[in-house]
Amino acid sequence: MAGKHLIVSGLVFKEGYTPSNEVIAFRENKTELAYYSRVTEVVIDNFSNPDKFESDYWVGLFGKHNRFDHSMLVGKRNKGVTMAVRLNTEASRENHHRIDHNYFGPRPMLGSNGGETLRIGTSHYSLSDSLTVVENNYFDRCDGEVEIISVKSGANKILNNTFFESRGTLTLRHGNGNLVEGNVFKGNGVDHTGGIRIINRDQIVKNNYLEGLTGYRFGSGFTVMNGVPNSTINRYHQVVNAKVENNTFINVEHIHLAAGSDAERTAVPKNSYFKNNLFYNENNKAPFSLFDDISGIAFAGNVSNLLKDNKIKSGISAQNFSLTKASNGLLYPNENSVNVGVSAKLKPTIKADTGPIWYAKKEPIVSFNSGKTIQVSAGENALFDAVEKASEGDVLVLTDGNYVENKIITLNKTLTIKAANAHKAKITFGRSTLFAIVDHGSLSLEGVVISGSESPDSTGNTLIRTAKWGMLVNYRFSMLNSIIEDLDINHSFHFFDSGSRAFADYISIKGNTFKNITGDLFRMDKEQDDLGIYNTEYLTVENNTFDSIGGAIVKLYRGGKDESTFGPHLSFVNNKVLNASKDKRNKTLASLYLHGAQVVSISGNEFNDSAPIVIEHTVGEPITVVKNNSLTKTSLPSVKELHAKGPHTAVLLNNKQY
Amino acid sequence: MAGKHLIVSGLVFKEGYTPSNEVIAFRENKTELAYYSRVTEVVIDNFSNPDKFESDYWVGLFGKHNRFDHSMLVGKRNKGVTMAVRLNTEASRENHHRIDHNYFGPRPMLGSNGGETLRIGTSHYSLSDSLTVVENNYFDRCDGEVEIISVKSGANKILNNTFFESRGTLTLRHGNGNLVEGNVFKGNGVDHTGGIRIINRDQIVKNNYLEGLTGYRFGSGFTVMNGVPNSTINRYHQVVNAKVENNTFINVEHIHLAAGSDAERTAVPKNSYFKNNLFYNENNKAPFSLFDDISGIAFAGNVSNLLKDNKIKSGISAQNFSLTKASNGLLYPNENSVNVGVSAKLKPTIKADTGPIWYAKKEPIVSFNSGKTIQVSAGENALFDAVEKASEGDVLVLTDGNYVENKIITLNKTLTIKAANAHKAKITFGRSTLFAIVDHGSLSLEGVVISGSESPDSTGNTLIRTAKWGMLVNYRFSMLNSIIEDLDINHSFHFFDSGSRAFADYISIKGNTFKNITGDLFRMDKEQDDLGIYNTEYLTVENNTFDSIGGAIVKLYRGGKDESTFGPHLSFVNNKVLNASKDKRNKTLASLYLHGAQVVSISGNEFNDSAPIVIEHTVGEPITVVKNNSLTKTSLPSVKELHAKGPHTAVLLNNKQY
Repeated sequence: MAGKHLIVSGLVFKEGYTPSNEVIAFRENKTELAYYSRVTEVVIDNFSNPDKFESDYWVGLFGKHNRFDHSMLVGKRNKGVTMAVRLNTEASRENHHRIDHNYFGPRPMLGSNGGETLRIGTSHYSLSDSLTVVENNYFDRCDGEVEIISVKSGANKILNNTFFESRGTLTLRHGNGNLVEGNVFKGNGVDHTGGIRIINRDQIVKNNYLEGLTGYRFGSGFTVMNGVPNSTINRYHQVVNAKVENNTFINVEHIHLAAGSDAERTAVPKNSYFKNNLFYNENNKAPFSLFDDISGIAFAGNVSNLLKDNKIKSGISAQNFSLTKASNGLLYPNENSVNVGVSAKLKPTIKADTGPIWYAKKEPIVSFNSGKTIQVSAGENALFDAVEKASEGDVLVLTDGNYVENKIITLNKTLTIKAANAHKAKITFGRSTLFAIVDHGSLSLEGVVISGSESPDSTGNTLIRTAKWGMLVNYRFSMLNSIIEDLDINHSFHFFDSGSRAFADYISIKGNTFKNITGDLFRMDKEQDDLGIYNTEYLTVENNTFDSIGGAIVKLYRGGKDESTFGPHLSFVNNKVLNASKDKRNKTLASLYLHGAQVVSISGNEFNDSAPIVIEHTVGEPITVVKNNSLTKTSLPSVKELHAKGPHTAVLLNNKQY
Repeated sequence: MAGKHLIVSGLVFKEGYTPSNEVIAFRENKTELAYYSRVTEVVIDNFSNPDKFESDYWVGLFGKHNRFDHSMLVGKRNKGVTMAVRLNTEASRENHHRIDHNYFGPRPMLGSNGGETLRIGTSHYSLSDSLTVVENNYFDRCDGEVEIISVKSGANKILNNTFFESRGTLTLRHGNGNLVEGNVFKGNGVDHTGGIRIINRDQIVKNNYLEGLTGYRFGSGFTVMNGVPNSTINRYHQVVNAKVENNTFINVEHIHLAAGSDAERTAVPKNSYFKNNLFYNENNKAPFSLFDDISGIAFAGNVSNLLKDNKIKSGISAQNFSLTKASNGLLYPNENSVNVGVSAKLKPTIKADTGPIWYAKKEPIVSFNSGKTIQVSAGENALFDAVEKASEGDVLVLTDGNYVENKIITLNKTLTIKAANAHKAKITFGRSTLFAIVDHGSLSLEGVVISGSESPDSTGNTLIRTAKWGMLVNYRFSMLNSIIEDLDINHSFHFFDSGSRAFADYISIKGNTFKNITGDLFRMDKEQDDLGIYNTEYLTVENNTFDSIGGAIVKLYRGGKDESTFGPHLSFVNNKVLNASKDKRNKTLASLYLHGAQVVSISGNEFNDSAPIVIEHTVGEPITVVKNNSLTKTSLPSVKELHAKGPHTAVLLNNKQY
């Protein structure tokens, strides 16, 4: 749309995607823009390009004095900011746009850079003022990447918005003189929920409420960055004159100050203060980490509960107080003497007051076991037929017997398949794959036995795989107490293979036995183009037994040099690994091969006569702990830093070799 | 189907694919088979699994005394033999099946192993007799891979079939005592058209007519292999007692004897003969190549025309004679004195006598320029709109002016786009890609100018690409006399990118200018899983100018150790290459990077200040010629043998360095 005083309302975009760069653009072309125009009560619902890494915006704001309000943007699954305020021509600067009362619904993890929900400006014009107001919006699980809102211009106001269980932060990335006031961040302890990150000059952050945030480093509940001296426009400008006052921080695990200090980022914050803020952590751990000299940040009039090891030595008064929930849903001190933190008058934006009232806000994911329970009898293609008939969330209970599957079972819904009696239902299959997880599919297996004995005599069979390429919808896979055996009819018979561009919210593998397998077990290594893309956020492998495995147990790959993702995470704990990963076709020469993983815990495992653990650190500040493993006839773990200089940063502790 | 005396007829399978391992199986399961049953006048037309490398058969013959006749199998595009006679249980051996009067229609190049049209048996049971009769079938351009028919069992009869312009051979791969009689092979000079390849004992090859066959090595017009002493069942058994008589070979370029002789294959043919055969090559070149001692092959009563350098010194009488086409369409000597070769009574199977008469035999490919000519005027999205409206084979003629394309132009038909006046129509584009070639798309460009100046400021833009993954239908791309410039708005801006599993019948690039490009030009390297798969059969690059190219000009990759493909082929001739391929992101460190290419000619080029040619030989017997190139401030070509021992086999000639 281009012109003046235009109003658009009541449109719903779904079941499709834009062939151009935007769904809604406040311009016709480079020169014809919109002014004093409004888009209200519009819905864009899962209107994502099916090619996940083809980039587009859903809303592009250009021109001046435009308003986008009471709309709903939910389920953007492809690359590209959900909504962008563009300042690329003079006619779009100092724009006085207003973005209000919108419902920014769940945006799933993208598994790469490019998943911000709202961006205002770009680094290029970030010294210009945008004068955009963002108020009374609800950000519901906006998990696309590390930045929820990325402010890249000056003089914006971010007011009274609610951030609910959203992984990432509101980041004042570029531009000066922004105001962040009256916002509520509720993390509820969800991984990587963050708050506010400050960079640049003259930022004011006041009267915000932050609770239950677990994020750390640049994703912390609160972060004040170090800058780069004489920074170019696209690096980190020094924090000067930041005012942080009357905010409430409750169970915010991390507040990082002078964060990112390194050989390049040496300009510490200056002329800044924290005043009259409230800090309360029920575990009594102080949230502060200091990464450089913070003498440029004055602390005054702040109050905390009794915290251990608080590195802020003055300006925070430690007191014994308790909290009660007020009618606005926020926690306040019971003691009148503690009168810092957010105002009692703060009125959080609630979900029901955002978006168009006539369009339902649906839950984005079907839970396992949320449907019917269906008994299945053994027989040829019995499971295939049962899956075809099942509905979302159903549980298929397999009675004892043999299930012979001669067709690939394509899963496009959330299903649980469990044995009525553990290990009494045995599945064999006659095609190259037993289960193919495709868009909208998620699978939970429990207590079954699956054998490759009837599989085709060819290489590369794979028991479970995703679509081979191009999934758009994230999936989940869980397996408990099952037996996977005799995937050995030919070489390179794999257990689980991720396709390129497939992404698992999680894969959870507990209490299973894997034996006699010629190929790999978890192939999460398809994104070899080094664009920061990877195949699973969480891979959890606990209390399993692996016996006689030709290929690698885990191949986990996250290439690229950007730092815009939290994962991948691996937990490999309390497993028994025997005679694993020594086949000559295992090019990694590793039982666990991890490249660019961000959070890794490998502990309590017994490795016997197996290939070693190989870990390659790339970017970010990966957290790698390898401890309490016993290594019999198995080499010690190898850890390398591929980019950082100096010794590797992994913690290797008490790994005993026999 | 399972049972006795069943008849199936009149079915058409199209627009779909089988969810199991076969479309038609002469069995219900492992034990319930078909006997004395017939499938007649059935059509399977382009009924291919959309995942090209998911394997299946279209027809599986099991049981005994079954007949498959007057049917049509056309357009199998996914992996897997079109029709298989299975001998995997005792109940399917000595089966006396009859396969007759079928039309085996065009099967496109698969670009990998697994594209045979008919297979009888497998190595495992190859010492069993099959007693299958294959007669009066028409094999029309069955180009899947190197074997058209693969006989892997004993006592079969291959009678009176026609092989029309089919790339590959009838191969007696395993099993003894087969009879090949009365067949007609017409190659018409098409690349890689072959005839008959003999391995094993007691094979009889008589009264066959072979004409216009260009194939060489294992794909020759005629091949007699060396064997492996005490061969395992799946290697090469020695040729013993082969009878080759009364065959006609006209313009058959290659007859290879004791072929494949190497350190393993040392058992030369024995007790065999060539008797009363006719050889005629109008270029007077003798077709014979001898790779080992052929004293075990007796020659007697054969006649040839006057041939130079004939290595067969006796048993072939060289005579001066001429040929005339007889009423059966075959060529016979005019001179009565020459009375060897095929019988005058041989009646070739003609296309019209095969398949069901009620189903049309369509041409598989739309030719460029076979449709209407349509004038297009310059403007925004003018080309996008014109392509949408165009029909198969149309020619879009662009009038002078600027074409600004803000949508990706998806090509799902065969189109030519040409400038009315060379270099007067200029195209720019605002998305990540200008042209995306998808299934059924082919593109010819002529005389246009395309610039990247208006493309998005992000990495990885690509002017032309195929579908990013999973094309099923081969495509063609041609570009003449065009200018491609300023693909430099960010790094890694590529010209042409093949998706994984996409396959070009050919790419032909002649007389163009490429300048100021940050990325690669021809990225035909997506099949990194080393399964013998590759992305183009022919890449022809002639008389172009390349100036200031950051990435590689050609990346051509064919991994894997099997030898079942003819390509890829590269011709890179008479080009000017200036300042190319030195960007630090060009990981190949090469201007031309060729891995596993089978036929390469690089000649008459001028390289100036550019990265070198890098060639990696893998398997097969690659034919690589690099000659008459001038290399200014450019390193000499590098050639490596990755598997074979000893010096490399490339011909490097007269490449002058300055």
